[in-house]
Amino acid sequence: MAVRQPSIRTTAPHPDLLPRLAAIVGARHVLTEPGDVGPHLVEWRGLFHGACAAVVRPGSTAEVAAVVAACSETGTAIVPQGGNTGLVGGQIPFDTAQIVLSLQRMDRVRTVDPAGNTITVEAGLTLLGVQQAADAADRLFPLSLASEGSCRIGGNIATNAGGTAVLAYGNARDLVLGLEVVLADGRVWDGLRSLRKDNTGYDLKNLFIGSEGTLGIVTAAVLKLFPKPREVETALVAVPDPMAALALMDRALARLGRSLTTFELMPRFGIDVVLRHGEGTRDPFANAHPWYVLMELSSGTEGTLRDVVEVILAEAIEAGDVIDAVIAESLDQRLDFWRLREVMSEVQSREGGSIKHDVAVPVAATPAFIAEASAAVMALVPGCRPLPFGHLGDGNIHFNVSQPLGMDKAAYLARWEEMNAVVHDITRRHGGSISAEHGIGILKRELLPGVKSEVEMDLMRTLKRTLDPKGLLNPGKVL
Amino acid sequence: MAVRQPSIRTTAPHPDLLPRLAAIVGARHVLTEPGDVGPHLVEWRGLFHGACAAVVRPGSTAEVAAVVAACSETGTAIVPQGGNTGLVGGQIPFDTAQIVLSLQRMDRVRTVDPAGNTITVEAGLTLLGVQQAADAADRLFPLSLASEGSCRIGGNIATNAGGTAVLAYGNARDLVLGLEVVLADGRVWDGLRSLRKDNTGYDLKNLFIGSEGTLGIVTAAVLKLFPKPREVETALVAVPDPMAALALMDRALARLGRSLTTFELMPRFGIDVVLRHGEGTRDPFANAHPWYVLMELSSGTEGTLRDVVEVILAEAIEAGDVIDAVIAESLDQRLDFWRLREVMSEVQSREGGSIKHDVAVPVAATPAFIAEASAAVMALVPGCRPLPFGHLGDGNIHFNVSQPLGMDKAAYLARWEEMNAVVHDITRRHGGSISAEHGIGILKRELLPGVKSEVEMDLMRTLKRTLDPKGLLNPGKVL
Repeated sequence: MAVRQPSIRTTAPHPDLLPRLAAIVGARHVLTEPGDVGPHLVEWRGLFHGACAAVVRPGSTAEVAAVVAACSETGTAIVPQGGNTGLVGGQIPFDTAQIVLSLQRMDRVRTVDPAGNTITVEAGLTLLGVQQAADAADRLFPLSLASEGSCRIGGNIATNAGGTAVLAYGNARDLVLGLEVVLADGRVWDGLRSLRKDNTGYDLKNLFIGSEGTLGIVTAAVLKLFPKPREVETALVAVPDPMAALALMDRALARLGRSLTTFELMPRFGIDVVLRHGEGTRDPFANAHPWYVLMELSSGTEGTLRDVVEVILAEAIEAGDVIDAVIAESLDQRLDFWRLREVMSEVQSREGGSIKHDVAVPVAATPAFIAEASAAVMALVPGCRPLPFGHLGDGNIHFNVSQPLGMDKAAYLARWEEMNAVVHDITRRHGGSISAEHGIGILKRELLPGVKSEVEMDLMRTLKRTLDPKGLLNPGKVL
Repeated sequence: MAVRQPSIRTTAPHPDLLPRLAAIVGARHVLTEPGDVGPHLVEWRGLFHGACAAVVRPGSTAEVAAVVAACSETGTAIVPQGGNTGLVGGQIPFDTAQIVLSLQRMDRVRTVDPAGNTITVEAGLTLLGVQQAADAADRLFPLSLASEGSCRIGGNIATNAGGTAVLAYGNARDLVLGLEVVLADGRVWDGLRSLRKDNTGYDLKNLFIGSEGTLGIVTAAVLKLFPKPREVETALVAVPDPMAALALMDRALARLGRSLTTFELMPRFGIDVVLRHGEGTRDPFANAHPWYVLMELSSGTEGTLRDVVEVILAEAIEAGDVIDAVIAESLDQRLDFWRLREVMSEVQSREGGSIKHDVAVPVAATPAFIAEASAAVMALVPGCRPLPFGHLGDGNIHFNVSQPLGMDKAAYLARWEEMNAVVHDITRRHGGSISAEHGIGILKRELLPGVKSEVEMDLMRTLKRTLDPKGLLNPGKVL
């Protein structure tokens, strides 16, 4: 990969550090053996390989607080880690004096309140675990990501995770009612409130959400739950272009509002790649079409959606916005449709090198962005194959670009940063974001000053200095 | 009113101040005549009477920035003010050296993007103006409050306003995508982004939202728009008690999710007061009932709600959760139902003194809170008449208490703080908030340390010092 590896600093840890940590969490929860530590140091796609003094696994908020206090006293930097599934290297340490603070042992559901539609969980519970606990109480926790079986809710909160249900339910930020956070000096902020409305002072919780562990360490959260859908309709829709897809979305939103839970765009090239390499995938249409939309709607009342979905699609066909459409008639067919979308990211590696961008633009600007960015990368690397797909409903396009057929993979990937610059430039021109859902971490840290004003960078640095004056919380990430 | 008036400081303003301000905004926009300044110094219910050096009315963001810079240089404190409709005195100055910075001239709609469902407006536009601009683009801006004709969107954002549509659409905070803020030193943070997803660095916008003008001055915002409802069903429902009301809400949420836009609780005493004093109000039921719910649902598709609402009500009647119900058959009838709720606050003054609380508890705890708080205030002031009403769907109860019949009004109101303490104590026990939607301002400032941890107070004070080191932005409010 042509991603620049941070150099690893081989500073010695403070001599008192490991014994102090062992006294707090127990010696068996201070991992130093390479076999134990290794999995915590490697980014799962192999983008980053780190180093640290130890992986510390506290079992309670009090232990996290004591660990952080000991680190503050010994000047030890801390890299908080959940499921180690992050895509921008935020969870990887690059200094042998630093520790990884793994939240994985803190994986309890503290309380479920179905009547109040809330659940209180610890940071180390997997996202799947949260979903399952909600389900057991006949409720829905809507956050949903490819890595949900292994990512941890604390990491989802620290990175303000997105996923496929943002259109109807928002990002992780929108699903958090309250937080418990260990501050840089080891004090605990207990903000575990279950309130829908609370205007008593500053909004501290949103400062920590999405700060990637650089301002505080999330140890627990109160999350919103929702009624479980009783009817779900899933359609795979062939459309002539992204503009027509947007027109279809407009139609669906006008009729069904937030019953529209998913609206994902996929280009034919993406479907080709999936059909070529994705086991058990099949094209539900007889003919190939230029673009596709995976559209899902859900309702609490059975029998209310199907007719409306059919009317919307019929009207859209008449208006020329839809070429063809299939509504899933069974759970199997629904899962087939979803599989086309879900494997699109992973199978792309089978087509050679892929240069990736996680951008968002204002929703209405998405078609122009896709057209301009596609033309620009094809001018930069003739023969390259853009695969723009993802959350059209949120203006969030995963603008991935496969290498030209026959080109040397390494030579292609060497142009990673050059291509990023071209795409991010177009993103910026549309008032967009160079990291819609993955965060900044270390991967995009050096790009940040290029897309933020001086005032904004200064505000962020000021907040970092204020909340972490010794610079020990995930240093070198984000800023 | 037995609300403690802050004493007014009669400091002289900096001698250079008024000429400098006149040079920036023009002399006619620096108001100093008592007749011009007066309306900006009085809280609309007469709770607070303030004083200031001048009311300054900048016409652009650049002018606001220059005014703030001039104030920073002359050490002049600034009280930002929108429509002067706040309920906790946050918008009133109490020092003849301070200025009121009125945003009322900045009342333009900058852009509307119906395809992207966003609108960009200046802080001084009335909430009604925002609603109307959205409506003209066939969109809905859902924030709705009693004062919407005169309150300004900048004030709504600065105080994180709530209202009657929070259940489905959230508070003001949830409706803001981007902000433009003038910082304490006069720099402008341009955070006017129209993005649904953006994980590039810290969330600055939520720090300013709800900070009541103490961390920065909001000059413009990008707001979310929604499709306009095509069908609205409004029902007035008689229920035996708040617990039954919650059970009804659960039923409605399970079937109709976020189509349920309003769920307001009203006690019989409230209906009595409204029928007695509210012009043109009438009871749609033949008999009196102990509690009422005003419930509203909306959908983008005509003809999808009515049947479901009828089924829900029929099932709830069978379960004993509903005594009787009327669904509005016309717009007039709908407005009649709403009028019962809308005048409930204002007509209460006709029953003598009223001691007010704006509290929120976790939704499921609302019935217990109402029962306990009612018993406690009746024990404290025998014969007093609790009127708990409001946003049951959000756990936000306006717990107002009318004086005993025949008691001296002043003697009753003298017990304001004593009764507050009793009610807030019960609120705290339920993990609640002593200011669900009105904010802290000056009215509840001294209560804040009693309901927040030391850690939280310290975090808030630290943020205040960091973003406003000279303490010139709305000093003495919130903290």
